[in-house]
Amino acid sequence: MTISSEAVERVFQQLKEQTPLIHHLTNTVTINDCANVTLAMGGSPVMATQLLEVEEMAMMAEGLVINFGTINDAMFAAMIKAGQTANQKGIPVVFDPVGVGATTYRTNKAKELIRTIKVSIIRGNASEISALIGKNTKTRGVDAGAIEMAPEVLAQEAAEVLNCLIVISGKEDVITDGRQLVVIDNGDYLLTKVTGTGCMTASLVATAAAVSENWFDGAVIGMATMSLAGEIAAKRLHAGEGLGSFRVKLMDTISTMNAATWLDGVRQK
Amino acid sequence: MTISSEAVERVFQQLKEQTPLIHHLTNTVTINDCANVTLAMGGSPVMATQLLEVEEMAMMAEGLVINFGTINDAMFAAMIKAGQTANQKGIPVVFDPVGVGATTYRTNKAKELIRTIKVSIIRGNASEISALIGKNTKTRGVDAGAIEMAPEVLAQEAAEVLNCLIVISGKEDVITDGRQLVVIDNGDYLLTKVTGTGCMTASLVATAAAVSENWFDGAVIGMATMSLAGEIAAKRLHAGEGLGSFRVKLMDTISTMNAATWLDGVRQK
Amino acid sequence: MTISSEAVERVFQQLKEQTPLIHHLTNTVTINDCANVTLAMGGSPVMATQLLEVEEMAMMAEGLVINFGTINDAMFAAMIKAGQTANQKGIPVVFDPVGVGATTYRTNKAKELIRTIKVSIIRGNASEISALIGKNTKTRGVDAGAIEMAPEVLAQEAAEVLNCLIVISGKEDVITDGRQLVVIDNGDYLLTKVTGTGCMTASLVATAAAVSENWFDGAVIGMATMSLAGEIAAKRLHAGEGLGSFRVKLMDTISTMNAATWLDGVRQK
Repeated sequence: MTISSEAVERVFQQLKEQTPLIHHLTNTVTINDCANVTLAMGGSPVMATQLLEVEEMAMMAEGLVINFGTINDAMFAAMIKAGQTANQKGIPVVFDPVGVGATTYRTNKAKELIRTIKVSIIRGNASEISALIGKNTKTRGVDAGAIEMAPEVLAQEAAEVLNCLIVISGKEDVITDGRQLVVIDNGDYLLTKVTGTGCMTASLVATAAAVSENWFDGAVIGMATMSLAGEIAAKRLHAGEGLGSFRVKLMDTISTMNAATWLDGVRQK
Repeated sequence: MTISSEAVERVFQQLKEQTPLIHHLTNTVTINDCANVTLAMGGSPVMATQLLEVEEMAMMAEGLVINFGTINDAMFAAMIKAGQTANQKGIPVVFDPVGVGATTYRTNKAKELIRTIKVSIIRGNASEISALIGKNTKTRGVDAGAIEMAPEVLAQEAAEVLNCLIVISGKEDVITDGRQLVVIDNGDYLLTKVTGTGCMTASLVATAAAVSENWFDGAVIGMATMSLAGEIAAKRLHAGEGLGSFRVKLMDTISTMNAATWLDGVRQK
Repeated sequence: MTISSEAVERVFQQLKEQTPLIHHLTNTVTINDCANVTLAMGGSPVMATQLLEVEEMAMMAEGLVINFGTINDAMFAAMIKAGQTANQKGIPVVFDPVGVGATTYRTNKAKELIRTIKVSIIRGNASEISALIGKNTKTRGVDAGAIEMAPEVLAQEAAEVLNCLIVISGKEDVITDGRQLVVIDNGDYLLTKVTGTGCMTASLVATAAAVSENWFDGAVIGMATMSLAGEIAAKRLHAGEGLGSFRVKLMDTISTMNAATWLDGVRQK
């Protein structure tokens, strides 16, 4: 299926009017990129992680991102507290299970998180999502490992089992709530050669969802914004340019994207 | 009032000769930007935060930056220790109260810091400075909330109450010690759309103050360098470029700035 | 001496085929740069630091980087555990003693690390390496202080005393195992004006060593890749460009480097 052009136009319009505050509890590797991409999309990022203040900060926010990139016990406790506050307030909680499946610690903590708070949207690669629902898989570091199922099937099963929206980033991206399913056929190989494009996608999803009438639209808009921007940025590279310039042009493209560019470039199916 | 062209020329000259060591205890979001901007201005950044070593490191430094972006208890203890050492050595201590006013924890810790060590210069937005002196305000995440007072009035009151130099970044920037007051009429809207421009300003202020005859000159020079660089970088953007290119050109402009460019571009009043 | 063109071609070929997983326990200042440069060279970075999971993560890796930039006790414990695992698996362990010599804490922890695990390659500037072997020197923050010995002599003495490969970055770079010695006569002054070029060199060394027949070749290839890339990036700067553009072009150059460019540009002696 596809989301409507009206939904897309509404979200981009709302982003101009609202500047939603997006509270992040995220990793130290890509935290700067996540803050910048949130600003580029029209949100306002805040990154407080101290247990004593996350409740107050989450209560002020319109969206929450929980990212496991450099998870540890202190951060986990703050994530739970912020997540419970977000649930109470009813704002979208986007979970990025970075590296889940690679170590027992990560997998167990992710399962504990999902049991303890209500996650609205999970965004990961296929092996991370697979590990979350106990499929036999192996995440290699933070890269997607080989999986047996088609991403569409995996996403639908995960949405049912975990009772939330699932966003799988990959060659094609899949967004589903278990009934509705959108596949995005955009992207570029270079998106896998810059750290944090997955983490940034979670920030885009949270920012768009924060102003959407329904979170499904937000998830599609955020996910496709990254894949389309990667595609456009790759095309804009000149001879001799490489990953440094790609990264700059990726941020340029996200920060100048509007509903018209999005609708013109995104291939939904 | 305005600072003299001789003062500006002296500071840029000293930066070439001295490479002042600027010790930072800062947040994990913009720590890389702060290190790079310190280098771009002619300083040498060091970011040690372990309680057992901050005393030795601060004793070696020519300036200290304390930034509350991702403040927690362990970091706070190290800030106090480094601050006491800096006070003992007599080097400028620049405090950036990021997000103060947004949570009780932050506001209380900021007040405790100011009571415990002697801060030389506080750089923040209007709502952060307002919260520091107990005015009724609300910081929304890390953005400036609405305040009732004109920035000049707020800055002067804060300088008197807190007995230090106050730098307020905003549409116009205000620098005051409670008696002398400089307003900088430079800047660009895009500076609010990149994370860390405030934090980086604190680094520039510390770097300039470290080599200044008086810290007031350093505060004006550091603050205006960021606002002028933002203005120049925005003008250098080509069609299709956005926040990625702006950030690169901002750093280009800071790293190539000299006394002549500064005196030519900065509008003091 | 020089390493052979066959060795260089083999390493670049292997990087295309293997995508080695490089586990980093590194600092919060340049962690993003280290991840991106590992990707640019053809590796896959993972940055897990939680004590409970580093063993499992290191067991999956093909190389380990230990960097002292923002060292603290919790990180040190994880470094020891990851290092022991890497030793058991037989993968290269690259140690970057950032700031060692500047504070007692750092120097003591570095010596404890070297006593406890088997480090394969140490990459630092002359004053850091000097401090590691107890020479009378003073590291100023994270910059190289003055040292009395020629880098070649220092490197050879350190290689013997510490029984590992030594890589000293400087105006000329020196790589030695105590018997073989390669000097690299590439680089640019601007490499000292961007934070993290040293840290990134350690990542490049680990990535190249992970796929090398012998770690000495990997150390030379990784070290020279950074110095040559800095030289090329500096030449590509246009009028009005500064450190922002240099950093982008540095990453562009590393990500597009191949054996032919390397062999054409690197001056070994």
